[in-house]
Amino acid sequence: MKKIPIVSIVGFSGSGKTTLVEKLIPELIRRGLRVATIKHNRHGFEVDHEGKDSWRHRRAGSAMTVLASPGKVAVMADTEGDPGLAELGERFIRDVDVILAEGFKKNPHPKIEVWRRALGREFLSGEDETLLAVAGDDPGGLAVPRLSLDDIAGLADLIVNRVIRR
Amino acid sequence: MKKIPIVSIVGFSGSGKTTLVEKLIPELIRRGLRVATIKHNRHGFEVDHEGKDSWRHRRAGSAMTVLASPGKVAVMADTEGDPGLAELGERFIRDVDVILAEGFKKNPHPKIEVWRRALGREFLSGEDETLLAVAGDDPGGLAVPRLSLDDIAGLADLIVNRVIRR
Repeated sequence: MKKIPIVSIVGFSGSGKTTLVEKLIPELIRRGLRVATIKHNRHGFEVDHEGKDSWRHRRAGSAMTVLASPGKVAVMADTEGDPGLAELGERFIRDVDVILAEGFKKNPHPKIEVWRRALGREFLSGEDETLLAVAGDDPGGLAVPRLSLDDIAGLADLIVNRVIRR
Repeated sequence: MKKIPIVSIVGFSGSGKTTLVEKLIPELIRRGLRVATIKHNRHGFEVDHEGKDSWRHRRAGSAMTVLASPGKVAVMADTEGDPGLAELGERFIRDVDVILAEGFKKNPHPKIEVWRRALGREFLSGEDETLLAVAGDDPGGLAVPRLSLDDIAGLADLIVNRVIRR
């Protein structure tokens, strides 16, 4: 089975990663692509709620719980450690043309870093050979293109040409 | 790949299906088995919340969103129509020994019906050849064993012998 191409949107908290992902998704869909997303939360997340049946199943020890209803499904599962992007993609994602990931800066996949001078944080991907481009301001000394955070068509072109069709 | 055995716990709302699943999970785990569960909600469910990043990804059109953090993962996906148990199991579940399902009474998998006279509802699986047993009261005219709702060891034996090891 062909691996699904993955591109990661990286940057500090507050840089605008989710907003960029929100704009890239419909732009990629307009180009006929099916898109999945993966978001990493170092500090955990809560999708299940006390008292709900799925919560009761999980609390009783189920390794994996699937909630299904017409048109949609949710899956909650235990994992060993903190799986990387490739493993998450292979294990859980199918039937899409591209995966947009948020927050996996240490994974060896193509990356776009969102960087804004006003945030006052360092540039994350200085030495990273997988960096495709910067979206936002110019941190200086870059060997990769810098695009405006508003240049959604340009960023989508880059994803299509450098990640999906390579 | 070997198919993961599935057993469905069926019965009217309020019959005690989730409570039974909650008791069966640890009993099966004590026997060295890894257990996944699938729950069907005809009327939908909400695991995602307005404003959360995963909600923003989904609203923007992602066909599938994975939330990952150390030790756990959640997946939210669109499906075509209302997938059956076999499809949900094949698509989303791996690395377990048995799937306990709740609420898929029309699927062609082995079933245990939870039935209690006090509920005043008919017996669902009268003509169903996939019925393995009744848990609860005796609806009469049964060709399959009836076990008490408290006989968790007996119900787990039945699942092990008739579903997992068959």
